[in-house]
Amino acid sequence: MPGTIEARLQTLGLVLPIATKPVANFLSCVQTGSTLFVSGQISSWNGELRYVGRVGEEITAEEAHAAARICALNVLAQVKAFLGSLDRIKRVCLVQGFVNGVPGFSDHPAVINGASDLFVEVFGEAGKHARFAVGAGSLPLNVATEVAAVFEVDDQ
Amino acid sequence: MPGTIEARLQTLGLVLPIATKPVANFLSCVQTGSTLFVSGQISSWNGELRYVGRVGEEITAEEAHAAARICALNVLAQVKAFLGSLDRIKRVCLVQGFVNGVPGFSDHPAVINGASDLFVEVFGEAGKHARFAVGAGSLPLNVATEVAAVFEVDDQ
Amino acid sequence: MPGTIEARLQTLGLVLPIATKPVANFLSCVQTGSTLFVSGQISSWNGELRYVGRVGEEITAEEAHAAARICALNVLAQVKAFLGSLDRIKRVCLVQGFVNGVPGFSDHPAVINGASDLFVEVFGEAGKHARFAVGAGSLPLNVATEVAAVFEVDDQ
Repeated sequence: MPGTIEARLQTLGLVLPIATKPVANFLSCVQTGSTLFVSGQISSWNGELRYVGRVGEEITAEEAHAAARICALNVLAQVKAFLGSLDRIKRVCLVQGFVNGVPGFSDHPAVINGASDLFVEVFGEAGKHARFAVGAGSLPLNVATEVAAVFEVDDQ
Repeated sequence: MPGTIEARLQTLGLVLPIATKPVANFLSCVQTGSTLFVSGQISSWNGELRYVGRVGEEITAEEAHAAARICALNVLAQVKAFLGSLDRIKRVCLVQGFVNGVPGFSDHPAVINGASDLFVEVFGEAGKHARFAVGAGSLPLNVATEVAAVFEVDDQ
Repeated sequence: MPGTIEARLQTLGLVLPIATKPVANFLSCVQTGSTLFVSGQISSWNGELRYVGRVGEEITAEEAHAAARICALNVLAQVKAFLGSLDRIKRVCLVQGFVNGVPGFSDHPAVINGASDLFVEVFGEAGKHARFAVGAGSLPLNVATEVAAVFEVDDQ
């Protein structure tokens, strides 16, 4: 039987990407007590890059919003692979959002809303989080967005 | 009766800005256990933008120092609105400081001192924190600085 | 008698730099419960700057990898100075990696591996961490890399 949040994903028509493994000496998720740190996720889908380029140049703010949503789905895929079930998430605590914007780009909040809205759609009130949304000078593989997160989880 | 820290603010002649509400699906503060995450605050005062532009171009390092101080005052305003009283802060743990510097800008520490000094003025030893101070490639609404923070709070 | 991790450093032929004191109103380490926040460390060795310049321009990705390794050694030097012994580290939780890359630089993961690999060499499985690796628009003193970290420590 799928969990409550899995059922919610289904109702929303959302599918999680495959949780890709880090290609280096780090982990996608680390839990300490009831705090879960999730590594920065980029806008790739099952390993295929999406939304490559700088926001305000090759990528529009609207496309970057979609990129941030994909980052958030990758975050959830990593958490599910780590915890076994998304029902063990008690709340989303912090979203760290990075936008590969051109100098002078100023609409980071709207871009990172792509991640924030996804978390709230899925978890409701428990999905509301603190966040920062800033411009990176560059990002891995030149993707448009990267999102890392901190969760409170059931540590039983 | 104002709390101890509120009295301290008064002694220092400091007034907190209005705690503005996020305009999207996130919160200014999220508490998990005794840890409080505060969202990135920009250099606006009661909703009016201050210090707009890149540091090393339209904005000097001195002005950016003032911008970071305003960011820190906004952080405190958010914490007060969330906790009810600043006396519930046990210590400032982490300051995440972002400076909208031109390429090659190198004096981020002096800029983010605007936030660090404010926290120590207000909380004394308990205001001393770990921090990172880095250059953003761009920032929301093109402000000069953004500051997020993590606090340890009384969780009673 | 040196601790287990100190002995491991010796076996690896690793020497820690001097833990430099922050030149402003902040601390290198702040502990709350069993969580230890370490301030962003730059690529200096005993106070002498190394690897100054933007990655992809004056600094190659290989040099930046070495810079990130130095940042990680500075992180460990700070933790040792704070805790007394590196044996009190239970695990590395989060690495926050910033690369001073030129616009379009895209190999942040390889650069920040300089820090990640060091932590795993020293702590083994306990050294594996969540991380984000992003491009800064600029960095303090124009260094190539800055690394901050969060540890779980023995809080006895």
